[in-house]
Amino acid sequence: MTQRVVENGNIGPIDASLTPRWAGPSTFALLPRIDEVEHADVAVIGVPWDTGVSYRPGTRFGPNHVRQSSRLLRPYNPAQDVSPFAELQVVDGGDIAANPFHIGEGIEQIDAGASAFLDRGTKLLTIGGDHTIALPLLRAVARKHGPVALLHFDAHLDTWDTYFHEPLTHGTPFRRAVEEGLLDTEALCHVGTRGPLYGIKDLKDDKRFGFGIVTSSDVYYQGVREVVAKLRDRIGNRPLYVSVDIDCMDPAYTPGTGTPEAGGLESRELLELLRGLAGLNIVGADIVEVAPAYDHAEITGIAAAHVAYDLISLYARQGIKA
Amino acid sequence: MTQRVVENGNIGPIDASLTPRWAGPSTFALLPRIDEVEHADVAVIGVPWDTGVSYRPGTRFGPNHVRQSSRLLRPYNPAQDVSPFAELQVVDGGDIAANPFHIGEGIEQIDAGASAFLDRGTKLLTIGGDHTIALPLLRAVARKHGPVALLHFDAHLDTWDTYFHEPLTHGTPFRRAVEEGLLDTEALCHVGTRGPLYGIKDLKDDKRFGFGIVTSSDVYYQGVREVVAKLRDRIGNRPLYVSVDIDCMDPAYTPGTGTPEAGGLESRELLELLRGLAGLNIVGADIVEVAPAYDHAEITGIAAAHVAYDLISLYARQGIKA
Amino acid sequence: MTQRVVENGNIGPIDASLTPRWAGPSTFALLPRIDEVEHADVAVIGVPWDTGVSYRPGTRFGPNHVRQSSRLLRPYNPAQDVSPFAELQVVDGGDIAANPFHIGEGIEQIDAGASAFLDRGTKLLTIGGDHTIALPLLRAVARKHGPVALLHFDAHLDTWDTYFHEPLTHGTPFRRAVEEGLLDTEALCHVGTRGPLYGIKDLKDDKRFGFGIVTSSDVYYQGVREVVAKLRDRIGNRPLYVSVDIDCMDPAYTPGTGTPEAGGLESRELLELLRGLAGLNIVGADIVEVAPAYDHAEITGIAAAHVAYDLISLYARQGIKA
Amino acid sequence: MTQRVVENGNIGPIDASLTPRWAGPSTFALLPRIDEVEHADVAVIGVPWDTGVSYRPGTRFGPNHVRQSSRLLRPYNPAQDVSPFAELQVVDGGDIAANPFHIGEGIEQIDAGASAFLDRGTKLLTIGGDHTIALPLLRAVARKHGPVALLHFDAHLDTWDTYFHEPLTHGTPFRRAVEEGLLDTEALCHVGTRGPLYGIKDLKDDKRFGFGIVTSSDVYYQGVREVVAKLRDRIGNRPLYVSVDIDCMDPAYTPGTGTPEAGGLESRELLELLRGLAGLNIVGADIVEVAPAYDHAEITGIAAAHVAYDLISLYARQGIKA
Amino acid sequence: MTQRVVENGNIGPIDASLTPRWAGPSTFALLPRIDEVEHADVAVIGVPWDTGVSYRPGTRFGPNHVRQSSRLLRPYNPAQDVSPFAELQVVDGGDIAANPFHIGEGIEQIDAGASAFLDRGTKLLTIGGDHTIALPLLRAVARKHGPVALLHFDAHLDTWDTYFHEPLTHGTPFRRAVEEGLLDTEALCHVGTRGPLYGIKDLKDDKRFGFGIVTSSDVYYQGVREVVAKLRDRIGNRPLYVSVDIDCMDPAYTPGTGTPEAGGLESRELLELLRGLAGLNIVGADIVEVAPAYDHAEITGIAAAHVAYDLISLYARQGIKA
Amino acid sequence: MTQRVVENGNIGPIDASLTPRWAGPSTFALLPRIDEVEHADVAVIGVPWDTGVSYRPGTRFGPNHVRQSSRLLRPYNPAQDVSPFAELQVVDGGDIAANPFHIGEGIEQIDAGASAFLDRGTKLLTIGGDHTIALPLLRAVARKHGPVALLHFDAHLDTWDTYFHEPLTHGTPFRRAVEEGLLDTEALCHVGTRGPLYGIKDLKDDKRFGFGIVTSSDVYYQGVREVVAKLRDRIGNRPLYVSVDIDCMDPAYTPGTGTPEAGGLESRELLELLRGLAGLNIVGADIVEVAPAYDHAEITGIAAAHVAYDLISLYARQGIKA
Repeated sequence: MTQRVVENGNIGPIDASLTPRWAGPSTFALLPRIDEVEHADVAVIGVPWDTGVSYRPGTRFGPNHVRQSSRLLRPYNPAQDVSPFAELQVVDGGDIAANPFHIGEGIEQIDAGASAFLDRGTKLLTIGGDHTIALPLLRAVARKHGPVALLHFDAHLDTWDTYFHEPLTHGTPFRRAVEEGLLDTEALCHVGTRGPLYGIKDLKDDKRFGFGIVTSSDVYYQGVREVVAKLRDRIGNRPLYVSVDIDCMDPAYTPGTGTPEAGGLESRELLELLRGLAGLNIVGADIVEVAPAYDHAEITGIAAAHVAYDLISLYARQGIKA
Repeated sequence: MTQRVVENGNIGPIDASLTPRWAGPSTFALLPRIDEVEHADVAVIGVPWDTGVSYRPGTRFGPNHVRQSSRLLRPYNPAQDVSPFAELQVVDGGDIAANPFHIGEGIEQIDAGASAFLDRGTKLLTIGGDHTIALPLLRAVARKHGPVALLHFDAHLDTWDTYFHEPLTHGTPFRRAVEEGLLDTEALCHVGTRGPLYGIKDLKDDKRFGFGIVTSSDVYYQGVREVVAKLRDRIGNRPLYVSVDIDCMDPAYTPGTGTPEAGGLESRELLELLRGLAGLNIVGADIVEVAPAYDHAEITGIAAAHVAYDLISLYARQGIKA
Repeated sequence: MTQRVVENGNIGPIDASLTPRWAGPSTFALLPRIDEVEHADVAVIGVPWDTGVSYRPGTRFGPNHVRQSSRLLRPYNPAQDVSPFAELQVVDGGDIAANPFHIGEGIEQIDAGASAFLDRGTKLLTIGGDHTIALPLLRAVARKHGPVALLHFDAHLDTWDTYFHEPLTHGTPFRRAVEEGLLDTEALCHVGTRGPLYGIKDLKDDKRFGFGIVTSSDVYYQGVREVVAKLRDRIGNRPLYVSVDIDCMDPAYTPGTGTPEAGGLESRELLELLRGLAGLNIVGADIVEVAPAYDHAEITGIAAAHVAYDLISLYARQGIKA
Repeated sequence: MTQRVVENGNIGPIDASLTPRWAGPSTFALLPRIDEVEHADVAVIGVPWDTGVSYRPGTRFGPNHVRQSSRLLRPYNPAQDVSPFAELQVVDGGDIAANPFHIGEGIEQIDAGASAFLDRGTKLLTIGGDHTIALPLLRAVARKHGPVALLHFDAHLDTWDTYFHEPLTHGTPFRRAVEEGLLDTEALCHVGTRGPLYGIKDLKDDKRFGFGIVTSSDVYYQGVREVVAKLRDRIGNRPLYVSVDIDCMDPAYTPGTGTPEAGGLESRELLELLRGLAGLNIVGADIVEVAPAYDHAEITGIAAAHVAYDLISLYARQGIKA
Repeated sequence: MTQRVVENGNIGPIDASLTPRWAGPSTFALLPRIDEVEHADVAVIGVPWDTGVSYRPGTRFGPNHVRQSSRLLRPYNPAQDVSPFAELQVVDGGDIAANPFHIGEGIEQIDAGASAFLDRGTKLLTIGGDHTIALPLLRAVARKHGPVALLHFDAHLDTWDTYFHEPLTHGTPFRRAVEEGLLDTEALCHVGTRGPLYGIKDLKDDKRFGFGIVTSSDVYYQGVREVVAKLRDRIGNRPLYVSVDIDCMDPAYTPGTGTPEAGGLESRELLELLRGLAGLNIVGADIVEVAPAYDHAEITGIAAAHVAYDLISLYARQGIKA
Repeated sequence: MTQRVVENGNIGPIDASLTPRWAGPSTFALLPRIDEVEHADVAVIGVPWDTGVSYRPGTRFGPNHVRQSSRLLRPYNPAQDVSPFAELQVVDGGDIAANPFHIGEGIEQIDAGASAFLDRGTKLLTIGGDHTIALPLLRAVARKHGPVALLHFDAHLDTWDTYFHEPLTHGTPFRRAVEEGLLDTEALCHVGTRGPLYGIKDLKDDKRFGFGIVTSSDVYYQGVREVVAKLRDRIGNRPLYVSVDIDCMDPAYTPGTGTPEAGGLESRELLELLRGLAGLNIVGADIVEVAPAYDHAEITGIAAAHVAYDLISLYARQGIKA
């Protein structure tokens, strides 16, 4: 009954001139559910799981919060000059249910859930959940694409080893991923890094794993364009996974997160950095660590929704290039 | 894929022992969508429309807020000793889209949307939206059942005449309903009334229309059981519409509303008053005036979800009696 | 230009059917300013001063917060069957400016400001500010009426001696008032008292000053009607000052206050207790300790506005009786 | 009684060394009311009207929120080296009352209210309300000055056509203004634009109407000084209307608004852009879309108050030049 | 250096007439740390662990929040006519560190931590943390005292079996405790119960384990005194453990919790119910499920602090009786 | 019992791999208390005193809020390549208790409290409290070091004269300090200044006292590196006091403060400016004006904690150089 925008044969968001934007189910960007289409090029999925968190919990409520905050997204992205929902069939793929009481089992469920999409030829834009989920997502991606390049936007390195002798937490996914051979260690970079560490060894380990670091202060001093050029240079044509921890931005922009650090990126910088990735061979992406209990007026949710939208637009521009 | 509780052949909420309660779409009480079942006995629908509001706006976001706040509802109601989703096929019927810029057109759309459910033999539990929506809902109900008895839980009378020479606002639905012959004027009662009026004429008009008044102080002095007895006496076997303005409760219990008045009911009193209606012939019900921008920690949303749940349980107990 | 309701020759609130309630200056209940009328029977004044506070500060923002929260008040009070703004000329008398850096000087300014109203035959309903202000208000009242009876609604006794060797704080006004002979020690009572004290000596001192105590639990066990009867008995025909600390209510009803104690009155009880004072010879009244930075959705402000409104209605019913 | 700062014969704010800044009525910047002076050069007025809003409502509470948030403004603006309240008689002109239930009637009331000021030779700094109000304000201005240049700070274009077949909403004022010949189409520019659109046609229409666009990213890449130079070049000596939608800033700076978009301006950039307009021939200005229910700690209100203050300073510097 | 109140040789809170209540470390009620005294009769300890939670997480921040909210507690409890910190040496025992990633290990650490206190003859008042922690606390208590009577204040039964095949969660501690023989099944009672269940089997199981139920509505209809009489009758002289889930109160009183249910107790009722237990043989007590991210103005924290204070007072009155 | 990180013989924070970061007392950065070590090189102390405030009060709760917000700080600062808690013995020195009712006495207590640390050879990093406290802190520092250079990060000049004829307020500490000869008037600079003043005389007075001004807009136009160079040039080798009013940052970054002004610094700029001071001869530092009642999600508290951490790191790098 609800009228939808259809372009290029792709079923898009509800028609907001007939149904108010605030009405109806909170699918991402008011897009159709996956069961309402025959094939999906890209699915936005939620992984509402926060069992790996080391400070403030609550990202389990992240996916639905970001969906609710995405209702204002419209179909054409002028910053990338693309109508992503017209270029590709984008859908809301729902949430992956994962056991909140057992880390190992939860991670396996996430891997299985993600792989089911990839197997059907659907690319994922995943909304967390805490950053632990990047590990099973990378497992699923690497199983399909082999080791991938990684751009990791985050205040933190997330290459720590264990916490309370637990190897699988939101501070460790990329160390595990390197150990498991999921990453192409020639093309790994953190962006937005800042804040105190446990020791200089954290930096040495991280470097040893192959990561480059662009701190948030580097972005201030060098500007977005220079940073983008360096990142593109490092990544080249490799299959690329983009993982965005919302806390790469300053707490002013993203209060609703679990381990905030002062001195972060502004949202405009992050969006421009992402837009600078146009044409790269992105095979997977996530936006994680949105903790709604600490959000106010949806500013974190809206920032996350825009990040997701620009990531989907990047998928769409690959489609155009191809 | 999502496992659901099925009892008596009725499809119920998702199985929360397999899918966490916070995951998946925010249907009311995690019930199925109407398109997932063949027939619905009761549909919970949203009317996200607040164009008739006279003070704080924002109830347009009410339905989805109450749905999100209903995730903790479980299938068995011990206070009424009934499993409503087992007795009846209850579904989430989605939202009625209504024009926010034209009161008259919006009201017609709500009437049409509600009537479509009633025509299919589905009873409604409607989540507002502002109280204006009670008028089109009563039109739809009266078209099917003739003039109905009305129990109206509210801080306000809502029998005013016009506001800015507009006859259709959230302060006027029951005056209009009396004028249109939608109500059985032998069996009308406000409960929870309090707060200042424009003049004593408000009370005189209201009485002339046939309304009785049980103020919130009356509930304090008489207690729930005495009030219930009087209400049942007044209503008898008549077809009954129950309209609950969330502001019948005190602002402590329901900060998220538009025209709060101190000195209101506590949530326990309201729930017990509703439970006292068991066995009455309820033909329609709504819960309105939840304004999420003023809510905190979902306390208003949760109160509304419980009101809705006990109203649905009343429907179910009719089913049992029949 | 703004149309106002005029009854019995008294200029009342703006006409809310022509000017929206949310528009225009935040005078109390949208009443005229004192310079807009020739004579005022009752002035609502603010004393935005919180220098005597012993825990959370911020009641300096109380008066304007309560005014903003009073915009929904309408002219007729059905609970007392009176139209206070028709019976009496009630105005917003503005704020008394008082030095925030010197307690003594501030208190003198408050006394002088209040006395100026009393000298012109205007009764006061004062919005605080912290409870220290009751002392200069009682000084002004006693100068005119002699020692007065006192009904004191509060979680605390406020008859402590000094704090950091300062005798004038929000914990001491009534001890000072007794010492200064401002109170009729035959007719003093605290209502709503609860929470821990420094020692049993606090109770003994308090009793020695002549105070009776009705705890919040007493109100629970005895009910409003029994308590009212006792209070009226104690007060008789004496000139009476009513001082309402908003924290007599539970923090659920009044989060926006500085020294909250669990286990308090509900707003309905407080309002009914006040209404029970009808016909008594009230010569002054205040509502204090509203700290907006801790309020949410104006629930504290609205409770305070309703308290003020019922106190003004008590003034009006004296007018009727006389 | 309240002492005021008087300079150059102009009556200014209350003297904050005698009356605390938090005391007394919330006129803008604690300036006198218009009825307290004989002539006003500039009036700050409120238009508390939000009937044209397409997502979160609530800007009806905007004017009084911004006034409350303006209490810290002092008389001398070092960034523009001017004492605006000394150069010009600036007053608080109160609110224009407009029918919230009928868009057409509301807009006519706003036009009439604004025109009454302009007819008396008073320039306006208007606080919204939603952006729909720019249309009647431009009608009033163009009636006096003919078609005007427009600088429009906003995340959105606001040149859409209709919404729910309503031509007068907060997304359409500037399209209507072009159609009605109120704007000088040689000198129109949006600043701060960003976020998704319905389609590329939105941009084409906008360009056809004569608008230039400086996106928020352009401001990042070019810097304030370069942008200012281009804007001044485009505008020249034309009579200029400046319309500031608070959402031109990032939600981090202005959570209290109705249609927030990530990636916006920071407040410092906006203020510097405005200061760059010194000497231009400004004939009208507004600041709109402040929705207090979503604000926190007045950060949106304070940003709006500073925008208003720098706009008034621009008026004052014209006075100096003349 | 900090001056402390000393009575009966027991070291009490800081002297608030010399050090402001808001200064210094947030020990419970500003009491000394355990390492500042030689022997402790009662220790208030925190168990900041929420790994067993089934909906909103965040009670890991509960203990420090309740401590911060306890700064206003004074030494004499007039409701129980006792000075608990004079009768007994009460201290802040700090927090038990427990592994947040492994439920089993965490529970063992809590048991060990609690037992260390009990072994030294110190009784515990434990602040959670989620309700899972009641299991290891009961293990420690039963090891010392044998099976104990249980008064369980809660909206929920907490006698469910497993959740995601995990037997140790905050919905299961009392089922496990019965199974492990930690409870005296002749003397078990839930108080404040309400809200939907999974099925009538939940009630049957619960009854089979020996529990009585006093619903929140029972408290409304019977009143505190009647309920207290029944509870005392059931418990007699048995060693008693009192477990208070903060959600036994209504969300209006305790928004800061994880699984709120409408229709709960008011704080005054809960405190009076607890005071009614005076003289019973209490051997352990906890207050759990305070989730600060959802609290506002510390109303939940303050309610919890008062609950803890009245529980400690009960310990003290045993001391007096003995 | 709690395990601590020990490096270079200095006792550091608790070991967060054994005790969760959210557990245990809120000392700054989870550092030891001063009584747990033999000698302290640097003490973080609180001065919870806000009696000198001219608008929103509440910074009395600042120190404990910043401590709570500092739990995520880790031992190694990569931005300055230093492990401050390894280089120096840093401790939490607790709070200085100061009379909140008498400005003069309070200031003397702060001076005495600070001097006691300095006498023992311990440098201070002080957390306010309002900015008045900079005066007694400078008195203590100058008594030891003679007149000092001052870097003052603030939206305001704080060189005003009196307020309500009180010379000691949070708007006057640096005027008093100049008058008392505490400052080296060759080396004084404000950074982050903006917002309206009372008159141009404010600027002239300020210049006369010897202050330079780097406005927040200067930081925007010149960039951090250029500003740092100028500041270092001005200061040279002089003993330097760094006073950071949190309101130097924009209200978006620091809503929790008392006199916010739009157009401020971002947190990244402030941190980089501070890091630019490495090697200077810092003899004292404070971070003031954090008002928790207006904070959200600890964003102000976290920003303050990071400022404190980078200031401590500056102390540590002096240690390294020496």
